[in-house]
Amino acid sequence: MRTILVIGIGAGNPDHMTVEAIAALNRADVLFIPDKGAEKAGLRHLREAICRRFIRAPGYRTVAVPIPRRAEAGGDYRGVVDDWHARIAAAYRGLFEAELAEGETGALLVWGDPALYDSTLRVVERVAAAGLALDWQVHPGISSVQVLAARHRIPLNGIGAPVLLTTGRRLAQGFPADQDSVVVMLDGEQAFAKLDPAGLEIFWGAYLGMPDEILLSGPLAETAPLIAQVRAEARARHGWIMDTYLLRRRAVA
Amino acid sequence: MRTILVIGIGAGNPDHMTVEAIAALNRADVLFIPDKGAEKAGLRHLREAICRRFIRAPGYRTVAVPIPRRAEAGGDYRGVVDDWHARIAAAYRGLFEAELAEGETGALLVWGDPALYDSTLRVVERVAAAGLALDWQVHPGISSVQVLAARHRIPLNGIGAPVLLTTGRRLAQGFPADQDSVVVMLDGEQAFAKLDPAGLEIFWGAYLGMPDEILLSGPLAETAPLIAQVRAEARARHGWIMDTYLLRRRAVA
Ligand SMILES: C[S@@+](CC[C@H](N)C(=O)[O-])C[C@H]1O[C@@H](n2cnc3c(N)ncnc32)[C@H](O)[C@@H]1O
Ligand SMILES: C[S@@+](CC[C@H](N)C(=O)[O-])C[C@H]1O[C@@H](n2cnc3c(N)ncnc32)[C@H](O)[C@@H]1O
Repeated sequence: MRTILVIGIGAGNPDHMTVEAIAALNRADVLFIPDKGAEKAGLRHLREAICRRFIRAPGYRTVAVPIPRRAEAGGDYRGVVDDWHARIAAAYRGLFEAELAEGETGALLVWGDPALYDSTLRVVERVAAAGLALDWQVHPGISSVQVLAARHRIPLNGIGAPVLLTTGRRLAQGFPADQDSVVVMLDGEQAFAKLDPAGLEIFWGAYLGMPDEILLSGPLAETAPLIAQVRAEARARHGWIMDTYLLRRRAVA
Repeated sequence: MRTILVIGIGAGNPDHMTVEAIAALNRADVLFIPDKGAEKAGLRHLREAICRRFIRAPGYRTVAVPIPRRAEAGGDYRGVVDDWHARIAAAYRGLFEAELAEGETGALLVWGDPALYDSTLRVVERVAAAGLALDWQVHPGISSVQVLAARHRIPLNGIGAPVLLTTGRRLAQGFPADQDSVVVMLDGEQAFAKLDPAGLEIFWGAYLGMPDEILLSGPLAETAPLIAQVRAEARARHGWIMDTYLLRRRAVA
């Protein structure tokens, strides 16, 4: 039996590590660090900085996990993602067998919280389902959504009211008619700029929790063009961007 | 100018404190501990345990905040809550003026994450709007929703799909027709037991992150009566219960 610890490490601010996540890091024999290529090198560096800062035993062992590229989704989004997860699972299985002896413990460092828009739990479940004897535990981490709310000093929900967490791809189909508070992640297309802005306000954040954090908020009509401009400039400067936002009907505040 | 630190302390497991939250606790001159009466004494004890464990300077100062009771909501839920927040804000304002000198820093310890179904941020904003010169910062905390997902080892969202966070009161109006994944908090009425269970599965947790944690999951039809029974017994035994759950359409898994 091998043990895998799935550890939420926060969304960019090492100070968002929890006491539990730090203890889990220190229990691992091997740390598996996903490598998604040059574009995401900034993220890999952050994972490495977290290991350096929080792991007390010297000479801990890290193993890079080359993450296969996902095909362009086209129409069949779930099919493409499913196939991609299968290939990632095969990569992890090989590494678990090669790098972990029976009885050893490996750690997977997950960006933000493993429960939100992350494939690690599905992948680990697949590895186990494919027959490798695994035990695994999950340690929650502060999500980018929470940092967004904290930095803007706002609750996500209206009083006694729901919040929808969704993706840019979904928002592109329109602001949900029956919702007042909508958090959007994974928006590479700036879906917010294509909505009818009447009655909506936006709370936007990029590089949340990091030294280059940017926050903008206001009525969507005036703020959307500003965000589009700031976002394009920041993206060009860094070579990458991660941003998240809350859209809220103004009456809800 | 007085400074207020709004600190998310996790939903019951002190190991979910973040490095940032611990540092914030240690920056405060005074810790304000809400007191909601005997029923919630367990929660007050946890806040006190967190202070004892994480605050390094001996002799730190805590001040109990007597939280006024909320009137029964009846039809006008928002009106009643609004009035209640006004009374809480008046209580905090009085305490900030009495207990914090100019230039001092107070901390408010918030259960879980301050961004989810918590009134602290609205209350602090009211105190500032009423004319007390305040600066305030927010530090996110691990929410009960995240502990629910971590302990069941599941993601909250389906692949590329939305998640709705809502309340028991809202769920009592029916499972939202356009959603597949719905997280429910603040459900004193066991709204899950009154839904048409066809095609739904539930992941339920009570006292999440605490020594008495209970987890149950399965198809809603079979699991709802079991949860109702376990919940009633646990509630009788402890004198209080806090529970949260994810409802998911089975095809989404
Ligand atoms: C694949 S999802 C992973 C989410 C992660 N599990 C979490 O809990 O934050 C990536 C998306 O999260 C959001 N995100 C993650 N980190 C962020 C950050 N530091 N600032 C802004 N958005 C971030 C962006 O919307 C990005 O497209
Ligand atoms: C007023 S809300 C506060 C939520 C809190 N801000 C959070 O982030 O978890 C209280 C509700 O949160 C949920 N909750 C809080 N702590 C919990 C725990 N330890 N176990 C299960 N549910 C919990 C329950 O649904 C409860 O009714």
